[in-house]
Amino acid sequence: MAEKSTLDNVITLAKRRGFVFQAGEIYGGTRSAWDYGPLGAELKENIRQQWWQTFVRGREDMVGLDSSIILPKAVWEASGHVATFTDPLVECLSCHTRLRQDHLIEAYEDKHGKQPENGMADINCPKCGNKGQWTEPQNFSGLMKTFLGPVDNEEGLHFLRPETAQGIFVNFNNVVTAARQKPPFGIGQIGKAFRNEITPGNFIFRTREFEQMEIEYFVHPSEADEHFKKWVDDCWNWFVDLGINPDNMRKFDVPAEDRAHYSAGTIDLEYNFGFQGNPWGELMGVANRTDYDLGVHNKHSNAKLEYFDQASGERYVPYVIEPSFGLTRSMMAFLVDAYVEDEAPNTKGGVDKRTVLKLDPRLAPVKAAVLPLSKKEELVPTAQKLQSELTKNWNVDYDTSGAIGRRYRRQDEIGTPFCITVDFDTLEDQAVTIRERDTMTQERVSLDQVKSYLADKLLG
Amino acid sequence: MAEKSTLDNVITLAKRRGFVFQAGEIYGGTRSAWDYGPLGAELKENIRQQWWQTFVRGREDMVGLDSSIILPKAVWEASGHVATFTDPLVECLSCHTRLRQDHLIEAYEDKHGKQPENGMADINCPKCGNKGQWTEPQNFSGLMKTFLGPVDNEEGLHFLRPETAQGIFVNFNNVVTAARQKPPFGIGQIGKAFRNEITPGNFIFRTREFEQMEIEYFVHPSEADEHFKKWVDDCWNWFVDLGINPDNMRKFDVPAEDRAHYSAGTIDLEYNFGFQGNPWGELMGVANRTDYDLGVHNKHSNAKLEYFDQASGERYVPYVIEPSFGLTRSMMAFLVDAYVEDEAPNTKGGVDKRTVLKLDPRLAPVKAAVLPLSKKEELVPTAQKLQSELTKNWNVDYDTSGAIGRRYRRQDEIGTPFCITVDFDTLEDQAVTIRERDTMTQERVSLDQVKSYLADKLLG
Repeated sequence: MAEKSTLDNVITLAKRRGFVFQAGEIYGGTRSAWDYGPLGAELKENIRQQWWQTFVRGREDMVGLDSSIILPKAVWEASGHVATFTDPLVECLSCHTRLRQDHLIEAYEDKHGKQPENGMADINCPKCGNKGQWTEPQNFSGLMKTFLGPVDNEEGLHFLRPETAQGIFVNFNNVVTAARQKPPFGIGQIGKAFRNEITPGNFIFRTREFEQMEIEYFVHPSEADEHFKKWVDDCWNWFVDLGINPDNMRKFDVPAEDRAHYSAGTIDLEYNFGFQGNPWGELMGVANRTDYDLGVHNKHSNAKLEYFDQASGERYVPYVIEPSFGLTRSMMAFLVDAYVEDEAPNTKGGVDKRTVLKLDPRLAPVKAAVLPLSKKEELVPTAQKLQSELTKNWNVDYDTSGAIGRRYRRQDEIGTPFCITVDFDTLEDQAVTIRERDTMTQERVSLDQVKSYLADKLLG
Repeated sequence: MAEKSTLDNVITLAKRRGFVFQAGEIYGGTRSAWDYGPLGAELKENIRQQWWQTFVRGREDMVGLDSSIILPKAVWEASGHVATFTDPLVECLSCHTRLRQDHLIEAYEDKHGKQPENGMADINCPKCGNKGQWTEPQNFSGLMKTFLGPVDNEEGLHFLRPETAQGIFVNFNNVVTAARQKPPFGIGQIGKAFRNEITPGNFIFRTREFEQMEIEYFVHPSEADEHFKKWVDDCWNWFVDLGINPDNMRKFDVPAEDRAHYSAGTIDLEYNFGFQGNPWGELMGVANRTDYDLGVHNKHSNAKLEYFDQASGERYVPYVIEPSFGLTRSMMAFLVDAYVEDEAPNTKGGVDKRTVLKLDPRLAPVKAAVLPLSKKEELVPTAQKLQSELTKNWNVDYDTSGAIGRRYRRQDEIGTPFCITVDFDTLEDQAVTIRERDTMTQERVSLDQVKSYLADKLLG
């Protein structure tokens, strides 16, 4: 189980080694969004590519899409987001902090193991401590607006998408026609989404700007339940295959009153992030959106988003099973799950503590590090030549600075699976020592075999 | 030379085959943004990955970053965008159409070969034809705003980035420290940017939502000119290496009065898109941003974005060379450049016209198509097994529908480099026929060699 301290350690490591920086830090920063540094950008990119390969390129029943972030107001009116994508907001009468009422009640329940008997009158302001002094709840829209064109008026009002899904629904006919698809088939998409969260927090877990990996899978209504179950399994297996310990995941069947307005059934996959209070957080969810979305667009536009089955002669509006992943949440889970503190032998015959990210090699931001044992001129040409060759295929570090043990530690804590040492024997035997991150075993590999050695190991 | 009709043909093909759809089409559509269909999403992804591999992973002097789209107002005040990122807007007094004054003057000059002698009094409204009746020009901000938090006020005012660059500048110290970089070195980033263009148009060329691939390359001021020239060459070569005909590109040295406010020198690479009027359009630009950006952030924040060279003891604010690519513009250029109409032999001994996208195999959205010669049961298991195997590595089509010649045409016009036919001989000789897209030559390849055959050819 991930403990609280693991999460703190991961956050510290992520900042120090350049996985994640605070957005706009030099201007005071914000919790609304985060910037992904050199290692974070690579890790995120690797997660993205694994997802795309598994769920889009690698499946004959899936195609990809990349739709726009800004969509006209009409789309969000039809989808129900303008009317119902709201959160109940209350304000502390004493310090005027604005908070989500449902989050306050949940926190009370987590702490006391029961509901607040007198409603909000029982709840202290977490900022100033004042008890039970709250405004009446107001509905607060989670949609972020912007204006296109020269004047900020109704005509120019557009919303940043709070989910990538609607860009898929409105293109249903385009994709069916151009890609010659028929149900059951799905459309996958990765991209930014924006929600005006009242209280962003928990590092990159809840932010106003975030990244989703979404699938809208279109099926005959009679087959919805079967595909729903299958998708829950497929999503679970994706995380486990990429190294998440299944003991740190659980399924949560979301009760009707807590589901999004479009859902007839939702199962969330939760991960044990180790948050204070409730340590579990939603990693992704599979929802049965029924024919709700295609149906509302059929009502609000002139389009007929439906499928005609030539074989059976049936015309129907497909049901939609939606596996919706948080990309940045997935990244956070992969980091927490990979974080280990163990011991490594040192040169004095004892052991040193080491921090290691046991990331799946397919996800590791740096695949290998080339480490010339000394900066002396003899080793440099060979080491640099090897680095240049490997860089054609992978993100490969080159580090000459400090004792070899210290260089191993630096690579271990960013999850580099292989350290390649070029030493003085290399000049004689044309071979290098390759050290594996987790087992710390070392192997002598001929220089001309390094590339195929890595290719083999990095495929996962 | 790309002709006008080539561009029209590309746009028609792009819509019909699902490279590009109009955003929000079922609600009347918009020219502000476009959606990338299954083939467009793959093509865009391939361009992205080639760029990232060439300029970020593949270079020891480069690292990646992925910063947020929404940044506080303070960043854009410091950068000068709030004050100077504006366009002159005029309105026709007759039909009230709003247009960019500089675009109207340019169009006049293109048509008449000289400046309008009497200024706006000489210029007709392109919408209603009324002559010389315009409002005085007003400055119109190209920044798109949004509000974070519960109330739309100054405190919550944020801007969507008009360039990814500022996210790199404000993280300069973070990256130098975490990634242990020293000038000359660069930070690359790919992501969406937003500009409130008055007149979006020319298909995916000028849109309000678009995607950039940007590099900010930090150098000692004395080395800026040298690196500037080198980057112009590196960028030019990237396009040519990926198949752009150099006759369709040119360099344009942007005169001082037309440069962005931060630039001491800009060379644009232009591509002959075949637009009406001036056929050339900007594909990317290399700018010498000097120490302008780091300098203004040093003035407006408490940060000291500078570099201390331990070897020389010198402390300095690096100059920045910025190669800034349009991802969607690049995609449009690759499509226009690849579009060819030629002839293919038909079964009657004659020739048929064919449309073919001669995309570099590394960019092609579909790498290969498996085509069983008949739908008869004997061929299906072998064909499907091959398709499943190849799909582990590549985006591979499977098509059983129609005569083989027609299936070739379908793959040719989306640029699939290899068509693999499974025929009745396959059952005997365990081999398939692989047809190459451009030469239409066919080769018999053993089933167990198909994967390595493709791997070899697809590396480019």
